[in-house]
Amino acid sequence: MHKETKLRSIVKTVSWRFLATATTVSLVLIFTGEVTIAVTVGAFEIVAKLIIYFLHERFWGRIHWGKREARPFVVWITGLSGCGKTSIAQEVAEMLRGKGIKTDHLDGRTIRELFPETGFSKEEVNEHIKRVGYLAQRLEKSGVCVVASFISPYRESRDFVRRVCDNFMEVHLATPAEVCEQRDTRDLYRRARRGIVKNLPGVDVAYEENPEAELVLDTTDIGIQESAERIILLLRQFWQ
Amino acid sequence: MHKETKLRSIVKTVSWRFLATATTVSLVLIFTGEVTIAVTVGAFEIVAKLIIYFLHERFWGRIHWGKREARPFVVWITGLSGCGKTSIAQEVAEMLRGKGIKTDHLDGRTIRELFPETGFSKEEVNEHIKRVGYLAQRLEKSGVCVVASFISPYRESRDFVRRVCDNFMEVHLATPAEVCEQRDTRDLYRRARRGIVKNLPGVDVAYEENPEAELVLDTTDIGIQESAERIILLLRQFWQ
Repeated sequence: MHKETKLRSIVKTVSWRFLATATTVSLVLIFTGEVTIAVTVGAFEIVAKLIIYFLHERFWGRIHWGKREARPFVVWITGLSGCGKTSIAQEVAEMLRGKGIKTDHLDGRTIRELFPETGFSKEEVNEHIKRVGYLAQRLEKSGVCVVASFISPYRESRDFVRRVCDNFMEVHLATPAEVCEQRDTRDLYRRARRGIVKNLPGVDVAYEENPEAELVLDTTDIGIQESAERIILLLRQFWQ
Repeated sequence: MHKETKLRSIVKTVSWRFLATATTVSLVLIFTGEVTIAVTVGAFEIVAKLIIYFLHERFWGRIHWGKREARPFVVWITGLSGCGKTSIAQEVAEMLRGKGIKTDHLDGRTIRELFPETGFSKEEVNEHIKRVGYLAQRLEKSGVCVVASFISPYRESRDFVRRVCDNFMEVHLATPAEVCEQRDTRDLYRRARRGIVKNLPGVDVAYEENPEAELVLDTTDIGIQESAERIILLLRQFWQ
Protein backbone atom coordinates (compact mmCIF):
# COMPACT_ATOMS: atom_id res chain seq x y z
CA MET A 1 0.00 0.00 0.00
CA HIS A 2 1.29 3.41 -0.93
CA LYS A 3 0.86 6.47 1.17
CA GLU A 4 2.09 9.77 -0.18
CA THR A 5 4.60 11.57 1.99
CA LYS A 6 4.05 15.25 2.84
CA LEU A 7 7.28 16.06 0.99
CA ARG A 8 5.91 14.62 -2.25
CA SER A 9 2.79 16.77 -1.87
CA ILE A 10 4.95 19.87 -1.24
CA VAL A 11 7.23 19.36 -4.25
CA LYS A 12 4.25 18.58 -6.45
CA THR A 13 2.53 21.72 -5.19
CA VAL A 14 5.53 23.86 -6.14
CA SER A 15 5.94 22.29 -9.58
CA TRP A 16 2.27 22.93 -10.28
CA ARG A 17 2.37 26.52 -9.03
CA PHE A 18 5.21 27.37 -11.38
CA LEU A 19 3.21 26.16 -14.38
CA ALA A 20 -0.07 27.65 -13.23
CA THR A 21 0.99 31.14 -12.22
CA ALA A 22 2.81 31.61 -15.50
CA THR A 23 -0.51 30.87 -17.22
CA THR A 24 -2.50 33.26 -15.02
CA VAL A 25 -0.07 36.16 -15.42
CA SER A 26 -0.17 35.71 -19.20
CA LEU A 27 -3.97 35.70 -19.22
CA VAL A 28 -4.34 38.82 -17.05
CA LEU A 29 -1.73 40.59 -19.18
CA ILE A 30 -3.60 39.73 -22.38
CA PHE A 31 -6.97 40.93 -21.09
CA THR A 32 -5.92 44.05 -19.13
CA GLY A 33 -2.75 44.99 -21.03
CA GLU A 34 -1.33 46.10 -17.67
CA VAL A 35 1.85 44.52 -16.41
CA THR A 36 1.40 45.80 -12.82
CA ILE A 37 -2.02 44.20 -12.41
CA ALA A 38 -0.84 40.97 -14.03
CA VAL A 39 2.13 40.71 -11.68
CA THR A 40 0.09 41.66 -8.59
CA VAL A 41 -2.59 39.07 -9.33
CA GLY A 42 0.19 36.56 -9.97
CA ALA A 43 1.88 37.33 -6.64
CA PHE A 44 -1.29 36.98 -4.59
CA GLU A 45 -2.27 33.90 -6.53
CA ILE A 46 1.01 32.20 -5.64
CA VAL A 47 0.45 32.54 -1.93
CA ALA A 48 -3.25 31.71 -1.92
CA LYS A 49 -3.04 28.74 -4.23
CA LEU A 50 0.09 27.14 -2.84
CA ILE A 51 -1.90 26.65 0.34
CA ILE A 52 -5.11 25.53 -1.36
CA TYR A 53 -3.28 23.14 -3.72
CA PHE A 54 -1.36 21.50 -0.87
CA LEU A 55 -4.56 20.91 1.09
CA HIS A 56 -6.24 19.59 -2.08
CA GLU A 57 -3.36 17.09 -2.56
CA ARG A 58 -3.55 15.92 1.05
CA PHE A 59 -7.31 15.48 0.73
CA TRP A 60 -6.95 13.34 -2.42
CA GLY A 61 -4.20 11.32 -0.77
CA ARG A 62 -6.90 9.89 1.50
CA ILE A 63 -9.18 8.86 -1.36
CA HIS A 64 -8.46 5.39 -2.66
CA TRP A 65 -10.78 5.54 -5.66
CA GLY A 66 -9.20 5.51 -9.11
CA LYS A 67 -5.99 3.72 -8.16
CA ARG A 68 -5.79 0.65 -10.32
CA GLU A 69 -4.69 -2.72 -9.04
CA ALA A 70 -4.74 -5.99 -10.94
CA ARG A 71 -7.16 -8.49 -9.43
CA PRO A 72 -4.77 -11.13 -8.11
CA PHE A 73 -4.82 -14.62 -9.60
CA VAL A 74 -2.91 -17.89 -9.59
CA VAL A 75 -1.93 -19.26 -12.99
CA TRP A 76 -0.93 -22.87 -12.58
CA ILE A 77 1.25 -24.27 -15.36
CA THR A 78 1.25 -28.06 -15.28
CA GLY A 79 2.60 -30.78 -17.55
CA LEU A 80 5.25 -33.42 -18.06
CA SER A 81 8.94 -32.84 -17.41
CA GLY A 82 10.47 -31.18 -20.48
CA CYS A 83 7.26 -29.57 -21.78
CA GLY A 84 8.64 -26.07 -21.14
CA LYS A 85 6.85 -25.12 -17.91
CA THR A 86 9.68 -23.21 -16.24
CA SER A 87 10.77 -21.19 -19.30
CA ILE A 88 7.21 -20.27 -20.20
CA ALA A 89 6.37 -19.39 -16.59
CA GLN A 90 9.46 -17.15 -16.39
CA GLU A 91 8.40 -15.37 -19.56
CA VAL A 92 4.82 -14.92 -18.30
CA ALA A 93 6.10 -13.56 -14.95
CA GLU A 94 8.39 -11.15 -16.81
CA MET A 95 5.54 -9.91 -19.00
CA LEU A 96 3.29 -9.39 -15.97
CA ARG A 97 5.99 -7.44 -14.11
CA GLY A 98 6.45 -5.35 -17.26
CA LYS A 99 2.80 -4.29 -16.88
CA GLY A 100 3.49 -3.12 -13.33
CA ILE A 101 1.68 -6.14 -11.84
CA LYS A 102 3.20 -7.51 -8.63
CA THR A 103 4.08 -11.10 -9.51
CA ASP A 104 5.79 -14.04 -7.85
CA HIS A 105 6.98 -17.13 -9.71
CA LEU A 106 6.92 -20.42 -7.80
CA ASP A 107 8.83 -23.17 -9.55
CA GLY A 108 8.85 -26.88 -8.78
CA ARG A 109 12.56 -27.42 -9.05
CA THR A 110 13.60 -24.36 -7.05
CA ILE A 111 11.28 -25.27 -4.18
CA ARG A 112 12.37 -28.91 -4.15
CA GLU A 113 15.98 -27.77 -3.86
CA LEU A 114 15.00 -26.01 -0.63
CA PHE A 115 13.15 -29.07 0.68
CA PRO A 116 15.27 -31.98 -0.50
CA GLU A 117 13.46 -34.39 1.80
CA THR A 118 10.29 -34.14 -0.32
CA GLY A 119 9.65 -37.50 -1.93
CA PHE A 120 8.11 -38.52 -5.24
CA SER A 121 5.40 -40.98 -4.21
CA LYS A 122 1.84 -39.96 -5.07
CA GLU A 123 1.12 -39.11 -1.42
CA GLU A 124 4.27 -37.04 -1.02
CA VAL A 125 3.73 -35.18 -4.28
CA ASN A 126 0.12 -34.42 -3.38
CA GLU A 127 1.14 -33.16 0.08
CA HIS A 128 3.90 -31.02 -1.47
CA ILE A 129 1.63 -29.52 -4.14
CA LYS A 130 -1.09 -28.78 -1.58
CA ARG A 131 1.39 -26.85 0.56
CA VAL A 132 2.66 -24.92 -2.44
CA GLY A 133 -0.95 -24.22 -3.35
CA TYR A 134 -1.57 -22.83 0.11
CA LEU A 135 1.47 -20.57 -0.35
CA ALA A 136 0.03 -19.42 -3.70
CA GLN A 137 -3.30 -18.69 -2.03
CA ARG A 138 -1.72 -16.56 0.70
CA LEU A 139 0.19 -14.58 -1.93
CA GLU A 140 -2.99 -14.13 -3.98
CA LYS A 141 -4.89 -13.02 -0.87
CA SER A 142 -2.21 -10.39 -0.26
CA GLY A 143 -2.60 -8.97 -3.75
CA VAL A 144 0.29 -10.77 -5.44
CA CYS A 145 -0.25 -12.54 -8.77
CA VAL A 146 1.30 -15.99 -8.84
CA VAL A 147 2.78 -17.92 -11.74
CA ALA A 148 3.35 -21.52 -10.64
CA SER A 149 5.18 -24.16 -12.69
CA PHE A 150 4.94 -27.70 -11.34
CA ILE A 151 4.58 -31.08 -13.03
CA SER A 152 1.74 -31.67 -10.51
CA PRO A 153 0.39 -34.74 -12.31
CA TYR A 154 -2.40 -35.62 -9.85
CA ARG A 155 -5.84 -34.10 -9.94
CA GLU A 156 -6.38 -34.40 -6.18
CA SER A 157 -3.77 -31.78 -5.33
CA ARG A 158 -4.40 -29.53 -8.36
CA ASP A 159 -8.09 -29.50 -7.45
CA PHE A 160 -7.16 -28.66 -3.85
CA VAL A 161 -5.24 -25.61 -5.09
CA ARG A 162 -8.16 -24.62 -7.31
CA ARG A 163 -10.48 -24.78 -4.30
CA VAL A 164 -8.31 -22.64 -1.98
CA CYS A 165 -7.51 -19.93 -4.55
CA ASP A 166 -9.93 -17.19 -5.61
CA ASN A 167 -8.90 -16.92 -9.27
CA PHE A 168 -7.26 -20.15 -10.34
CA MET A 169 -6.29 -20.65 -13.97
CA GLU A 170 -5.04 -24.09 -14.94
CA VAL A 171 -2.77 -24.16 -17.98
CA HIS A 172 -1.96 -27.68 -19.12
CA LEU A 173 1.07 -27.94 -21.40
CA ALA A 174 -0.18 -31.11 -23.03
CA THR A 175 2.92 -31.85 -25.05
CA PRO A 176 3.04 -35.61 -25.83
CA ALA A 177 5.32 -37.70 -23.63
CA GLU A 178 7.37 -38.76 -26.69
CA VAL A 179 8.21 -35.15 -27.54
CA CYS A 180 9.18 -34.40 -23.92
CA GLU A 181 11.25 -37.56 -23.82
CA GLN A 182 13.14 -36.53 -26.96
CA ARG A 183 14.03 -33.20 -25.36
CA ASP A 184 14.89 -34.88 -22.02
CA THR A 185 16.55 -31.67 -20.81
CA ARG A 186 17.20 -33.02 -17.32
CA ASP A 187 18.14 -36.57 -18.25
CA LEU A 188 15.10 -37.78 -16.32
CA TYR A 189 13.45 -39.96 -18.97
CA ARG A 190 16.65 -41.89 -19.65
CA ARG A 191 17.08 -42.53 -15.96
CA ALA A 192 13.41 -43.48 -15.56
CA ARG A 193 13.69 -45.97 -18.44
CA ARG A 194 16.60 -47.56 -16.63
CA GLY A 195 14.64 -47.66 -13.38
CA ILE A 196 17.00 -45.24 -11.58
CA VAL A 197 14.24 -42.65 -11.27
CA LYS A 198 10.78 -43.77 -10.16
CA ASN A 199 7.34 -42.14 -10.38
CA LEU A 200 8.10 -40.06 -13.46
CA PRO A 201 4.83 -38.91 -15.02
CA GLY A 202 4.65 -40.05 -18.63
CA VAL A 203 6.82 -43.09 -17.96
CA ASP A 204 5.73 -45.18 -15.00
CA VAL A 205 2.88 -43.06 -13.62
CA ALA A 206 0.13 -41.35 -15.58
CA TYR A 207 -0.56 -37.64 -15.83
CA GLU A 208 -4.15 -37.10 -14.72
CA GLU A 209 -5.73 -34.69 -17.21
CA ASN A 210 -8.36 -32.16 -16.26
CA PRO A 211 -10.90 -31.67 -19.07
CA GLU A 212 -11.83 -28.36 -17.46
CA ALA A 213 -8.37 -26.79 -17.53
CA GLU A 214 -8.70 -23.16 -18.60
CA LEU A 215 -6.08 -23.57 -21.33
CA VAL A 216 -4.48 -26.57 -23.01
CA LEU A 217 -1.36 -25.97 -25.09
CA ASP A 218 0.75 -28.45 -26.99
CA THR A 219 4.27 -26.98 -27.10
CA THR A 220 5.53 -29.38 -29.76
CA ASP A 221 5.46 -26.71 -32.43
CA ILE A 222 4.99 -23.42 -30.60
CA GLY A 223 7.78 -21.59 -28.82
CA ILE A 224 8.16 -20.04 -25.38
CA GLN A 225 7.24 -16.54 -26.52
CA GLU A 226 4.03 -17.55 -28.26
CA SER A 227 2.97 -19.85 -25.41
CA ALA A 228 3.51 -17.02 -22.93
CA GLU A 229 1.50 -14.62 -25.06
CA ARG A 230 -1.44 -17.04 -25.20
CA ILE A 231 -1.36 -17.33 -21.41
CA ILE A 232 -1.25 -13.53 -21.04
CA LEU A 233 -4.35 -13.35 -23.27
CA LEU A 234 -6.13 -15.70 -20.86
CA LEU A 235 -5.13 -13.54 -17.87
CA ARG A 236 -6.04 -10.15 -19.33
CA GLN A 237 -9.48 -10.28 -17.70
CA PHE A 238 -7.80 -9.63 -14.33
CA TRP A 239 -6.47 -6.20 -15.11
CA GLN A 240 -8.90 -4.88 -17.73
CA MET B 1 1.36 -1.56 -6.93
CA HIS B 2 -1.03 1.28 -7.58
CA LYS B 3 -1.44 2.99 -10.87
CA GLU B 4 -3.77 5.92 -11.10
CA THR B 5 -6.54 5.58 -13.62
CA LYS B 6 -7.14 8.36 -16.13
CA LEU B 7 -10.59 8.86 -14.61
CA ARG B 8 -9.11 9.63 -11.18
CA SER B 9 -6.85 12.24 -12.79
CA ILE B 10 -9.82 13.79 -14.61
CA VAL B 11 -12.07 14.04 -11.55
CA LYS B 12 -9.18 15.40 -9.48
CA THR B 13 -8.49 17.95 -12.22
CA VAL B 14 -12.10 19.18 -12.16
CA SER B 15 -12.25 19.37 -8.37
CA TRP B 16 -9.05 21.42 -8.35
CA ARG B 17 -10.23 23.73 -11.15
CA PHE B 18 -13.39 24.62 -9.26
CA LEU B 19 -11.39 25.70 -6.22
CA ALA B 20 -8.67 27.44 -8.19
CA THR B 21 -10.72 29.45 -10.67
CA ALA B 22 -12.89 30.79 -7.84
CA THR B 23 -9.66 32.10 -6.28
CA THR B 24 -8.38 33.64 -9.54
CA VAL B 25 -11.66 35.40 -10.36
CA SER B 26 -11.75 36.87 -6.84
CA LEU B 27 -8.16 38.11 -7.14
CA VAL B 28 -8.65 39.74 -10.56
CA LEU B 29 -11.87 41.33 -9.32
CA ILE B 30 -10.10 42.80 -6.28
CA PHE B 31 -7.23 44.25 -8.29
CA THR B 32 -9.07 45.52 -11.38
CA GLY B 33 -12.55 46.15 -9.90
CA GLU B 34 -13.95 44.99 -13.25
CA VAL B 35 -16.33 42.06 -13.34
CA THR B 36 -16.00 41.54 -17.12
CA ILE B 37 -12.22 41.16 -17.00
CA ALA B 38 -12.40 38.91 -13.92
CA VAL B 39 -14.90 36.60 -15.61
CA THR B 40 -13.04 36.58 -18.94
CA VAL B 41 -9.73 35.71 -17.30
CA GLY B 42 -11.56 33.04 -15.28
CA ALA B 43 -13.11 31.54 -18.42
CA PHE B 44 -9.83 31.30 -20.33
CA GLU B 45 -8.06 30.03 -17.24
CA ILE B 46 -10.52 27.17 -16.92
CA VAL B 47 -9.79 25.86 -20.39
CA ALA B 48 -6.01 26.39 -20.32
CA LYS B 49 -5.43 24.99 -16.86
CA LEU B 50 -7.75 22.01 -17.06
CA ILE B 51 -5.46 20.76 -19.78
CA ILE B 52 -2.21 21.69 -18.04
CA TYR B 53 -3.34 20.27 -14.68
CA PHE B 54 -4.38 16.97 -16.22
CA LEU B 55 -1.01 16.59 -17.95
CA HIS B 56 0.75 17.54 -14.70
CA GLU B 57 -1.17 14.80 -12.84
CA ARG B 58 -0.32 12.20 -15.48
CA PHE B 59 3.33 13.20 -15.32
CA TRP B 60 3.43 12.81 -11.53
CA GLY B 61 1.62 9.50 -11.80
CA ARG B 62 4.82 8.14 -13.34
CA ILE B 63 7.07 9.38 -10.54
CA HIS B 64 7.39 6.88 -7.70
CA TRP B 65 9.30 9.16 -5.35
CA GLY B 66 7.52 10.22 -2.15
CA LYS B 67 5.16 7.27 -1.93
CA ARG B 68 5.75 5.60 1.38
CA GLU B 69 5.83 1.84 1.81
CA ALA B 70 6.68 -0.12 4.96
CA ARG B 71 9.83 -2.21 4.56
CA PRO B 72 8.43 -5.73 4.77
CA PHE B 73 9.40 -7.97 7.69
CA VAL B 74 8.53 -11.28 9.32
CA VAL B 75 7.75 -11.16 13.03
CA TRP B 76 7.87 -14.68 14.40
CA ILE B 77 6.02 -15.21 17.67
CA THR B 78 7.13 -18.43 19.33
CA GLY B 79 6.47 -20.04 22.71
CA LEU B 80 4.68 -22.82 24.56
CA SER B 81 1.04 -23.70 24.01
CA GLY B 82 -1.12 -21.34 26.07
CA CYS B 83 1.36 -18.45 26.24
CA GLY B 84 -0.93 -16.22 24.15
CA LYS B 85 0.74 -16.40 20.71
CA THR B 86 -2.39 -16.41 18.58
CA SER B 87 -4.25 -13.63 20.42
CA ILE B 88 -1.19 -11.39 20.55
CA ALA B 89 -0.39 -12.06 16.88
CA GLN B 90 -3.98 -11.20 15.91
CA GLU B 91 -3.72 -7.93 17.83
CA VAL B 92 -0.36 -7.08 16.22
CA ALA B 93 -1.73 -7.85 12.73
CA GLU B 94 -4.77 -5.67 13.46
CA MET B 95 -2.57 -2.77 14.59
CA LEU B 96 -0.35 -3.05 11.51
CA ARG B 97 -3.36 -3.08 9.18
CA GLY B 98 -4.64 -0.01 11.04
CA LYS B 99 -1.47 1.77 9.94
CA GLY B 100 -2.19 0.92 6.32
CA ILE B 101 0.52 -1.76 6.25
CA LYS B 102 -0.26 -4.83 4.15
CA THR B 103 -0.12 -7.69 6.65
CA ASP B 104 -0.76 -11.43 6.64
CA HIS B 105 -1.13 -13.52 9.79
CA LEU B 106 0.03 -17.13 9.62
CA ASP B 107 -1.11 -19.20 12.57
CA GLY B 108 0.02 -22.66 13.61
CA ARG B 109 -3.38 -24.06 14.40
CA THR B 110 -5.11 -22.74 11.26
CA ILE B 111 -2.43 -24.15 8.98
CA ARG B 112 -2.40 -27.52 10.72
CA GLU B 113 -6.16 -27.77 10.20
CA LEU B 114 -5.50 -27.51 6.46
CA PHE B 115 -2.74 -30.13 6.58
CA PRO B 116 -4.02 -32.65 9.13
CA GLU B 117 -1.41 -35.21 8.08
CA THR B 118 1.39 -33.07 9.59
CA GLY B 119 2.86 -34.97 12.53
CA PHE B 120 4.40 -33.82 15.82
CA SER B 121 7.79 -35.56 15.82
CA LYS B 122 10.81 -33.25 15.85
CA GLU B 123 11.52 -34.02 12.18
CA GLU B 124 7.95 -33.41 11.09
CA VAL B 125 7.68 -30.19 13.09
CA ASN B 126 10.95 -28.90 11.65
CA GLU B 127 9.86 -29.73 8.11
CA HIS B 128 6.49 -28.04 8.70
CA ILE B 129 8.03 -24.88 10.18
CA LYS B 130 10.59 -24.63 7.38
CA ARG B 131 7.82 -24.75 4.80
CA VAL B 132 5.83 -22.14 6.64
CA GLY B 133 9.00 -20.05 6.86
CA TYR B 134 9.43 -20.30 3.13
CA LEU B 135 5.86 -19.10 2.71
CA ALA B 136 6.62 -16.15 5.03
CA GLN B 137 9.71 -15.33 2.98
CA ARG B 138 7.78 -15.28 -0.30
CA LEU B 139 5.19 -12.98 1.24
CA GLU B 140 7.93 -10.70 2.62
CA LYS B 141 9.63 -10.65 -0.77
CA SER B 142 6.36 -9.52 -2.33
CA GLY B 143 6.04 -6.61 0.07
CA VAL B 144 3.71 -8.19 2.60
CA CYS B 145 4.48 -7.97 6.33
CA VAL B 146 4.01 -11.29 8.08
CA VAL B 147 2.95 -12.00 11.65
CA ALA B 148 3.56 -15.69 12.37
CA SER B 149 2.42 -17.51 15.53
CA PHE B 150 3.79 -21.02 15.95
CA ILE B 151 5.02 -22.97 18.99
CA SER B 152 8.08 -23.77 16.83
CA PRO B 153 10.13 -25.13 19.74
CA TYR B 154 13.21 -26.17 17.74
CA ARG B 155 16.06 -23.85 16.87
CA GLU B 156 16.93 -25.67 13.67
CA SER B 157 13.75 -24.63 11.89
CA ARG B 158 13.47 -21.17 13.49
CA ASP B 159 17.04 -20.48 12.39
CA PHE B 160 16.18 -21.68 8.89
CA VAL B 161 13.36 -19.15 8.72
CA ARG B 162 15.68 -16.42 10.02
CA ARG B 163 18.15 -17.27 7.24
CA VAL B 164 15.63 -17.19 4.40
CA CYS B 165 13.88 -13.96 5.46
CA ASP B 166 15.31 -10.46 4.97
CA ASN B 167 13.98 -8.85 8.15
CA PHE B 168 13.29 -11.55 10.70
CA MET B 169 12.24 -10.58 14.22
CA GLU B 170 11.97 -13.40 16.75
CA VAL B 171 9.61 -12.73 19.63
CA HIS B 172 9.79 -15.39 22.32
CA LEU B 173 6.82 -15.45 24.67
CA ALA B 174 8.81 -16.98 27.50
CA THR B 175 5.92 -17.58 29.84
CA PRO B 176 6.85 -20.40 32.27
CA ALA B 177 5.45 -23.84 31.47
CA GLU B 178 3.58 -23.92 34.82
CA VAL B 179 1.67 -20.75 33.95
CA CYS B 180 0.80 -22.06 30.48
CA GLU B 181 -0.25 -25.39 32.00
CA GLN B 182 -2.59 -23.63 34.45
CA ARG B 183 -4.29 -21.83 31.55
CA ASP B 184 -4.38 -25.05 29.46
CA THR B 185 -6.80 -23.41 27.02
CA ARG B 186 -6.77 -26.35 24.63
CA ASP B 187 -6.70 -29.17 27.16
CA LEU B 188 -3.29 -30.17 25.80
CA TYR B 189 -1.29 -30.27 29.02
CA ARG B 190 -3.81 -32.50 30.77
CA ARG B 191 -3.76 -34.90 27.82
CA ALA B 192 0.05 -34.79 27.62
CA ARG B 193 0.30 -35.62 31.34
CA ARG B 194 -1.88 -38.65 30.70
CA GLY B 195 0.26 -39.63 27.74
CA ILE B 196 -2.54 -39.18 25.18
CA VAL B 197 -0.66 -36.32 23.50
CA LYS B 198 3.05 -36.76 22.78
CA ASN B 199 5.83 -34.28 21.97
CA LEU B 200 4.27 -31.33 23.79
CA PRO B 201 6.93 -28.68 24.39
CA GLY B 202 7.16 -27.89 28.10
CA VAL B 203 6.04 -31.40 29.06
CA ASP B 204 7.92 -34.21 27.34
CA VAL B 205 10.09 -32.22 24.92
CA ALA B 206 12.08 -29.08 25.69
CA TYR B 207 11.63 -25.65 24.14
CA GLU B 208 14.98 -24.65 22.63
CA GLU B 209 15.57 -21.03 23.62
CA ASN B 210 17.42 -18.56 21.40
CA PRO B 211 19.48 -16.10 23.46
CA GLU B 212 19.51 -13.80 20.44
CA ALA B 213 15.74 -13.49 20.03
CA GLU B 214 14.92 -9.86 19.28
CA LEU B 215 12.34 -9.71 22.08
CA VAL B 216 11.56 -11.93 25.07
CA LEU B 217 8.26 -11.37 26.85
CA ASP B 218 6.85 -13.19 29.85
CA THR B 219 3.07 -12.95 29.51
CA THR B 220 2.35 -14.12 33.08
CA ASP B 221 1.42 -10.63 34.19
CA ILE B 222 1.05 -8.58 31.01
CA GLY B 223 -2.02 -8.69 28.82
CA ILE B 224 -2.56 -9.11 25.10
CA GLN B 225 -2.81 -5.39 24.41
CA GLU B 226 0.43 -4.47 26.20
CA SER B 227 2.34 -7.39 24.65
CA ALA B 228 1.16 -6.33 21.19
CA GLU B 229 2.22 -2.73 21.84
CA ARG B 230 5.73 -3.82 22.84
CA ILE B 231 6.02 -5.84 19.63
CA ILE B 232 4.83 -2.86 17.57
CA LEU B 233 7.56 -0.77 19.23
CA LEU B 234 10.12 -3.32 18.05
CA LEU B 235 8.75 -3.17 14.49
CA ARG B 236 8.50 0.62 14.15
CA GLN B 237 11.94 0.76 12.54
CA PHE B 238 10.42 -0.74 9.39
CA TRP B 239 8.10 2.12 8.57
CA GLN B 240 9.78 5.12 10.13
